[in-house]
Amino acid sequence: PDSASAGAAAERLAGLAVPAGALGRLGELGVWLSGVQGQCPPRPLDDVRLVIFAGDHGVAGHGVSAYPPAITAAMVRTFVAGRAGVNALAAAHDVRVRVLDVGVDDDLEGLPAEVSADKVRRGSGAIHLEDALSAEETQQALAVGRRVAEREIAEGAQLLLSGDMGIGNTTPAAALVAAGLGLGAADAALVAGRGTGVDDAGLDRKTAVLAEALARVGERATDPVETLTALGSADLAATVGYLLAATQAGVPVLLDGLMSVACALTAERIAPGTAAWCTAGHRSPEPAQSLALAHLGLEPLLDLGMRLGEGSGAVTAVPVLRSAVSLLRDVALLSELMPEAPTGPAGA
Amino acid sequence: PDSASAGAAAERLAGLAVPAGALGRLGELGVWLSGVQGQCPPRPLDDVRLVIFAGDHGVAGHGVSAYPPAITAAMVRTFVAGRAGVNALAAAHDVRVRVLDVGVDDDLEGLPAEVSADKVRRGSGAIHLEDALSAEETQQALAVGRRVAEREIAEGAQLLLSGDMGIGNTTPAAALVAAGLGLGAADAALVAGRGTGVDDAGLDRKTAVLAEALARVGERATDPVETLTALGSADLAATVGYLLAATQAGVPVLLDGLMSVACALTAERIAPGTAAWCTAGHRSPEPAQSLALAHLGLEPLLDLGMRLGEGSGAVTAVPVLRSAVSLLRDVALLSELMPEAPTGPAGA
Repeated sequence: PDSASAGAAAERLAGLAVPAGALGRLGELGVWLSGVQGQCPPRPLDDVRLVIFAGDHGVAGHGVSAYPPAITAAMVRTFVAGRAGVNALAAAHDVRVRVLDVGVDDDLEGLPAEVSADKVRRGSGAIHLEDALSAEETQQALAVGRRVAEREIAEGAQLLLSGDMGIGNTTPAAALVAAGLGLGAADAALVAGRGTGVDDAGLDRKTAVLAEALARVGERATDPVETLTALGSADLAATVGYLLAATQAGVPVLLDGLMSVACALTAERIAPGTAAWCTAGHRSPEPAQSLALAHLGLEPLLDLGMRLGEGSGAVTAVPVLRSAVSLLRDVALLSELMPEAPTGPAGA
Repeated sequence: PDSASAGAAAERLAGLAVPAGALGRLGELGVWLSGVQGQCPPRPLDDVRLVIFAGDHGVAGHGVSAYPPAITAAMVRTFVAGRAGVNALAAAHDVRVRVLDVGVDDDLEGLPAEVSADKVRRGSGAIHLEDALSAEETQQALAVGRRVAEREIAEGAQLLLSGDMGIGNTTPAAALVAAGLGLGAADAALVAGRGTGVDDAGLDRKTAVLAEALARVGERATDPVETLTALGSADLAATVGYLLAATQAGVPVLLDGLMSVACALTAERIAPGTAAWCTAGHRSPEPAQSLALAHLGLEPLLDLGMRLGEGSGAVTAVPVLRSAVSLLRDVALLSELMPEAPTGPAGA
């Protein structure tokens, strides 16, 4: 971010015809947007885009989710049909949605070819038993994510959001967070949440899977790319690539729930400074999201109890960013309302 | 609210192609909107209107505010010019703004006549020393508020917001909350907040003024209309009338900060059941707002640290309501995605 633009925005904020500090988070957000855009006041966010990275997860066959793996493909079809939760929200808030099958365990016949054009593999390894990906697949997925971000930016994206779809995905995402925070098998319960709604027995299984996975991987988790190979998945690695490319191009990112934030944490490990280009849309009930956000120094804008995934929390937060832009752009300066007596040659 | 429509909405929510409970507050809001609209799914909120009730307060001359009373008139001019904080937010979120001078201590020369056409008086009495209004003025202000709500509704308002402007107004608003909760002079510190930003000495003066006012009024505060006369102001009484007329006409209300919520509490005392037509937009740092919200059983949608007033918190929350509407209207039902084998005469 550009500290001169952020500084100019902070100065402009202080000069607005509002009591000092009265805009709260909206004032801070406006300053952040000026910094990431390199412009004060910030530009309106007219072109906002969400990419949903879809993939399946080997752990879903091991009782960690409330839903069967076949739901992943069904939901990709629902996104393409424009009928999922995030489609409704995106239509309401003028956000473009792209869904990308990076690792769905289904051929998705009949869908537009572009949906699966960048597919890395079908499914990912069950992380407590084997690596999620090969090292080559991790690089391929990172590159897929980078390319899609670059394409969206080339088409005019001013703000990028990341979304997820994949039954079982909160398990590898929690593992990425554990790895990112240096937590081991003994700490698995700290990062395990109920996802789409597993019961107590499901949560116990999930915690055990996470503990086994972290124990299996051991010191390899100290390397972020190796973490993606061992504990991640194709969709999560692609999301990391997407976040890296967006922030390296200077395009701000609005994060969503656990998957999005776990990938931001991983991206920050790969390229320190990434988080400065990110803001957090919505607090997830998943404990790992809160741990990762705290580590990144991010505080979500919304806390509406949503746990839908799909990028829905980020899309719901887009109008908050637009509020911040409008305040810094359109509110009168105190100096306009109460000009001092004119001085200098132009004065009367 | 219509329990049949709310029930139908709850059933629809349960049938959406999302995990149970995954929409959090947005799901609950959609059900509430169906109930208040008497329609499932709820209608889009295309016509949303904010009325800002402006007035001055005798207590502002007694050191309870960080700003001088002349700011009230200056801000009314800023609203009319479309350059205040809430104007920027309203433009961003397609909310119409009307500002009404009910009790500004200024003739507001040069502004359109309609701004002050319903003026009740200039200023209001300093509530620790005298009544804010006469009984007749209270009735007049209530009627002004009712009329403006009826006018907005006749013009098509689907959702009404209330906003405030008036230096010193958090003092009478806190007094309304104290009265509504049965708190007396000894509890003044519980409802006193820093408003636009008074220092410790200012907060002490404000607490003392509140204690004196509550002690002066005594048992009269058990009657809600008498409370407005003794402890309120023209703008607050008008806001109460506005909320009563809106909710009695079955038009839902999105509440703002302390002034809005203090008036909703007073309206609930006058007409029990009013709060069922209201939802809360934003949590204020003012302690009296939280006390009143808890009493009304309302939980704000947003908590962004704003303390601007003007209706700004409510306007910022409008997109959250629109999110809720879009989800209940536009997300596929599970039964559409996974239809059972057709049966009956139309089946193949």
